[in-house]
Amino acid sequence: MLHLWDILGTYVFCVSGAIAARQKSMDWFGMFMLALITGTGGGTLRSMLIGDTPPPVFRDPIYLLASLAAVVTALFAAPLWEKRRRIVSVVDAIGLGVFVCIGVQIALDQNLAWWAAIGMGIITATFGGVLRDIVRTEVPLIFRKEIYATACAAGGLVYLLLERIDTPASINCLVTTASVAGIRLLAIRYALNQSS
Amino acid sequence: MLHLWDILGTYVFCVSGAIAARQKSMDWFGMFMLALITGTGGGTLRSMLIGDTPPPVFRDPIYLLASLAAVVTALFAAPLWEKRRRIVSVVDAIGLGVFVCIGVQIALDQNLAWWAAIGMGIITATFGGVLRDIVRTEVPLIFRKEIYATACAAGGLVYLLLERIDTPASINCLVTTASVAGIRLLAIRYALNQSS
Amino acid sequence: MLHLWDILGTYVFCVSGAIAARQKSMDWFGMFMLALITGTGGGTLRSMLIGDTPPPVFRDPIYLLASLAAVVTALFAAPLWEKRRRIVSVVDAIGLGVFVCIGVQIALDQNLAWWAAIGMGIITATFGGVLRDIVRTEVPLIFRKEIYATACAAGGLVYLLLERIDTPASINCLVTTASVAGIRLLAIRYALNQSS
Repeated sequence: MLHLWDILGTYVFCVSGAIAARQKSMDWFGMFMLALITGTGGGTLRSMLIGDTPPPVFRDPIYLLASLAAVVTALFAAPLWEKRRRIVSVVDAIGLGVFVCIGVQIALDQNLAWWAAIGMGIITATFGGVLRDIVRTEVPLIFRKEIYATACAAGGLVYLLLERIDTPASINCLVTTASVAGIRLLAIRYALNQSS
Repeated sequence: MLHLWDILGTYVFCVSGAIAARQKSMDWFGMFMLALITGTGGGTLRSMLIGDTPPPVFRDPIYLLASLAAVVTALFAAPLWEKRRRIVSVVDAIGLGVFVCIGVQIALDQNLAWWAAIGMGIITATFGGVLRDIVRTEVPLIFRKEIYATACAAGGLVYLLLERIDTPASINCLVTTASVAGIRLLAIRYALNQSS
Repeated sequence: MLHLWDILGTYVFCVSGAIAARQKSMDWFGMFMLALITGTGGGTLRSMLIGDTPPPVFRDPIYLLASLAAVVTALFAAPLWEKRRRIVSVVDAIGLGVFVCIGVQIALDQNLAWWAAIGMGIITATFGGVLRDIVRTEVPLIFRKEIYATACAAGGLVYLLLERIDTPASINCLVTTASVAGIRLLAIRYALNQSS
């Protein structure tokens, strides 16, 4: 389940990268690269920071396929994507939560302190978008709209609290993801500092 | 002593990041992130380059606290900060020297060649500022005002010369830091290609 | 031979970085840094991604010397460099091919999958230019002109096919480099989406 949502989340992140690339009139390769960076940049930086190399994107070809699918989506289904904004937001929010889970989990496996694990969760979930914006020479969106990061930090805390009372990992992940996605979707619903 | 100055230097660097973020009208989270990146980005890149992971910022929470303090400073004491420019410059210059020391020392511990150790000293001291400018989509200041880097390189050389004649590490660090800070402050005093 | 071309290719890449820095009116240190980043950034990122630290640029001073030579070239021989565009293009194209070879080879030595090895070849050959453009706050050229990356990907495939039929490494490298350089030069010759 976690793996499935990891891939779905990556795909949605990749599409945001591919659409961003298209807006800067990049060609298909630029779209592919920016999709890949947006979808996997967070996990890749986490791997490099922890010393857990090579990063996942070089271990499992599924991330390349997600990027390719994202390029196809951005090229041929961008209008449809825009229309389905509600579904996209939900998948994006769940993806965000799953990324936080994965980041915190891997950090704890590597014996990082709890606050560092939350940091790794935030980096995993948000740094792909930061790199996307830097490549496009724009000030990273997340540095201007804090709710995105706050949702991730809250999710990381939830994970650590459940971890402490010995909740099974699967339930832990479920609740963490639901927390992140919930905060994120409520923020969009009430236009509370909404970051696309 | 070295650790104390490391933290003070980090804090001053963090404030420069937080103020830079505020100028780009980022919110508090953006200010915090940019503070953290500016203050710890150099040491983090050094760690990743050497393979000495996880980087210090994920091992000691003091750097997070320095960033938080920097955000508070930038939010509530920016005018005071501007007025105290002379003290800030001195702490900043000493911080620069301490960062060079730490970078060179760690690189030598990892058996890097002398010229690579100087490179690591320069990276430790200056790369946080480079990342700060890239995130703000500005051409890095240090690439336009070389005296900053020259001071670091000179300090690195001093360190290596003293190391070769078996000076105790504490005196070595003191002289190195004084050299970097001295060059930096003289450059400001005589407006010699002054960088921020 | 491979090493010689590695250095020549690095030098040509470095000059492109130094000239780019000069256009943004950076000083000599900025030129040196941007030259170094352009010439060695791809290999450095590859090293960090694979966990093969420290990166080559911190192990062999030849890359620093290549950057220094590039700064001198950009300062005193930029017009000559422009006039010799044909020779420069050939060396640049061969350098690109050699970089792909080195990247793929090292990735295979570290037991990465074939598609990940091609990725490392592309990163080695192109990421220095990406970093050069990000530092200059420009959208990376390679994301807008795909033929550069396509040539690298094709070269990576050639390498892997030859590897599979047990071609000696030296011949393998020669054919791979020739493929990349050939595609690249044909693209320039027929102005087919020509980059730089």
